[in-house]
Amino acid sequence: MAKVKIGVIGAGSIAWSSTLIRDISLTKGLWGSTVTLMDINRERLEITYNFARRYSSEIGADLKFEKTLNMLDAIRDADFVINTALAGGHNYYEKMRAISEKHGYYRGINSVEWNMVSDYHTIWGYYQFKLMREVAEAVEDVSPTAYLILLANPVFEGTTLLSRVTRANVIGLCHGHLGYQTIAETLGLNPSDVSAECIGFNHVIWLTKFTCKGEDAYPLLDEWIAKSSEKYWVRWRKRQKGPFDIQMSPAAVDMYRRYGLFPVGDTVRGGTWKYHWNLKTKKMWFGPTGGPDSEIGWRIYLEGHERQMSRITEALYDSKTPLSNILPPKMSQESVVPIIDSIANDGEGLYQVNILNKGVIDGIPDDVAVEVPAKVDGKGVHRVYVSSLPKSIMKYVLYPRMLRMEWALEAFLEGGRDLLFDWLISDPRTRSIRQIEETINDLLSLPENKEMAEHFN
Amino acid sequence: MAKVKIGVIGAGSIAWSSTLIRDISLTKGLWGSTVTLMDINRERLEITYNFARRYSSEIGADLKFEKTLNMLDAIRDADFVINTALAGGHNYYEKMRAISEKHGYYRGINSVEWNMVSDYHTIWGYYQFKLMREVAEAVEDVSPTAYLILLANPVFEGTTLLSRVTRANVIGLCHGHLGYQTIAETLGLNPSDVSAECIGFNHVIWLTKFTCKGEDAYPLLDEWIAKSSEKYWVRWRKRQKGPFDIQMSPAAVDMYRRYGLFPVGDTVRGGTWKYHWNLKTKKMWFGPTGGPDSEIGWRIYLEGHERQMSRITEALYDSKTPLSNILPPKMSQESVVPIIDSIANDGEGLYQVNILNKGVIDGIPDDVAVEVPAKVDGKGVHRVYVSSLPKSIMKYVLYPRMLRMEWALEAFLEGGRDLLFDWLISDPRTRSIRQIEETINDLLSLPENKEMAEHFN
Repeated sequence: MAKVKIGVIGAGSIAWSSTLIRDISLTKGLWGSTVTLMDINRERLEITYNFARRYSSEIGADLKFEKTLNMLDAIRDADFVINTALAGGHNYYEKMRAISEKHGYYRGINSVEWNMVSDYHTIWGYYQFKLMREVAEAVEDVSPTAYLILLANPVFEGTTLLSRVTRANVIGLCHGHLGYQTIAETLGLNPSDVSAECIGFNHVIWLTKFTCKGEDAYPLLDEWIAKSSEKYWVRWRKRQKGPFDIQMSPAAVDMYRRYGLFPVGDTVRGGTWKYHWNLKTKKMWFGPTGGPDSEIGWRIYLEGHERQMSRITEALYDSKTPLSNILPPKMSQESVVPIIDSIANDGEGLYQVNILNKGVIDGIPDDVAVEVPAKVDGKGVHRVYVSSLPKSIMKYVLYPRMLRMEWALEAFLEGGRDLLFDWLISDPRTRSIRQIEETINDLLSLPENKEMAEHFN
Repeated sequence: MAKVKIGVIGAGSIAWSSTLIRDISLTKGLWGSTVTLMDINRERLEITYNFARRYSSEIGADLKFEKTLNMLDAIRDADFVINTALAGGHNYYEKMRAISEKHGYYRGINSVEWNMVSDYHTIWGYYQFKLMREVAEAVEDVSPTAYLILLANPVFEGTTLLSRVTRANVIGLCHGHLGYQTIAETLGLNPSDVSAECIGFNHVIWLTKFTCKGEDAYPLLDEWIAKSSEKYWVRWRKRQKGPFDIQMSPAAVDMYRRYGLFPVGDTVRGGTWKYHWNLKTKKMWFGPTGGPDSEIGWRIYLEGHERQMSRITEALYDSKTPLSNILPPKMSQESVVPIIDSIANDGEGLYQVNILNKGVIDGIPDDVAVEVPAKVDGKGVHRVYVSSLPKSIMKYVLYPRMLRMEWALEAFLEGGRDLLFDWLISDPRTRSIRQIEETINDLLSLPENKEMAEHFN
């Protein structure tokens, strides 16, 4: 049992932190460790801290929890630093979305080909990138041997940025690849019989291998599409299980037909404007909610998020009912704690991670973060051999997405109004040069964007 | 003196062929050679053939000219095959432009970021690519050791395509880099004192080195911009010397300011929609003609082209006036004949060529054609060391341009309606998915596009 220190930046988001705390509490290999919870919001931090103490004690986990408003306290002497913070919070980005929409940019200027996810902030992610870099630089300074685990989005841009501009040992994580289990279940397969390889960039991963008991399961998927998909969609259109129920949507099947491999998890939320042109289009491809990134789906998501926070907060006021009634003591499928366990206790495991490519995926530059399976043990992360991606995915998906990543990072690193202009001048929602200028002006006039406005001046 | 055979595909374009014939006639190193003129248009071929015989005999050049309607006759036993053919001719592409414009695609669906040149046919270049490949495959078959000199546009796409899919020894040529001489002249420098390195992709080349008598001349350019450009533009707006007089336009200076290096030659015709949104925008950046690629400038160009053809044709009917009155016996600045001379007579020279990158420009894949200076001698083309390009040009110019090249080649090689759809769904002129469908339908319904429609079905 390794006793480590885990610093959690942005721990105030109880919806997420509660899962982390549960998983750590259930992982005996990490008992004896210290978890330092950090947030800039004192009230929310307090909630997480109280939750952590009570939950772990209910479980009987031997863990020490600390709370701090000071980022450096969470990072100093840490073996692992988890960054899950969203600079500015959801409301701030919703304001920018509203301004964008006023000027004709449906779902915001940030939503572009292969990045339609509503809280994957790239071109307008100035503060988010700044915070990510601050955390990474602090790790570099005070805990240079720590692993920096990036859970905060945008994981693709963030992992690439931090790996390029700092020496922090960055691992980006996302649970989207678990979508393969939904594929398996829909085909009537037992997920535990199924093995999948999903590779690409975060939120743009493709099912390069899909086997059931060692046999290729793609033919079963083809058969399902040919024989069962239409019937499935009729039922699904009546009873979509919430906006995230899109793994087997017409959008996913159309992407498979077009690009040659099945898209997994958040990948289905992406695509070109073909799938996203307006709410009507979104409903056609993503069901009655229009998927998680329509105005309908996103409201449902944000409200659900709020409800989950309230539910846990209320539970904390009720000292009689065990918290494990709210959050049963069962490991989530998030990989962050198992990865920490694998590293801390040198127990080899295969995990889906985001790391610099360095030759793993053919045709992608070495200094771009890819999402791939990798071996993790006490010595860290080890790249493993993965499949090649077909040229349809390279040329029509990964290269365009990579370009937008480069533009987003350049905008953050270099600043200047031109970089916002060049982002918008190639946007299919742009109708005139005046529209671009007015959109930029209005976004940068937001009181919260004072510093950002100087950066892009 | 090497006696070689030079096959000229598409020799019926007398405006271009007359320059070629003049240069060959004036190059004694190639006397004794055979020039086989080929075109599918018998009448136009006759004109070129008659011009060639009479012009070379006026000069007293020892050359043998042949004419043929059969491509293979021009290629068989050739040492050099020059491809200058435009499949379909200008009128065909003007029809596609008109259809595009009816649907809201100003200047045609082919005009996109960094490729606004009106006869640089990419996404709708099906027949042009097909012809290019036919020529290259014939070279591969019957004259595998010949050099295939590609003068036909799109040189960037064409050189990349042919180098990838055939074993023909391809050299793409364009005179655009000579724009550096205009820069020099505007600064009051003697072009012969000036040395320039221009690199990138064809039509997207940047002034990486600019010296006068060995000294960096960029400071002179900066000084001109600071002190003289405004005055220059006032005069230029009153008396623009035709639509191609844009090397020192506000567009060029703005691109320099934005991307960090001065754009050379046809590069200035490119850029994002910032410079091309509509005629008003084009006039602002490219002067009263709107540059060569506005509706005004392009009409002037096509009419001038027609006039030049008529002028030479008429001169041929007048047997008393020497042709050299029309076309004085002085070498043009086109490099095609000097390059043939360098190879045929093993006389080393440095030329601007388009060849597969193979490591010449950092950050560009090996199998993409770049435009760079290279040494040419009896053994062929030898890559030389060139500068690196700044990341602003890599990320905002070359990568986006490369993506469109890949999409254009994929559309030609793979076919399928999706590839046209995906081209248009990321076009800032697209207003709706219906607009895309209708544009594709109308373009493919053109009688000339019967075969192309099957390809994209």
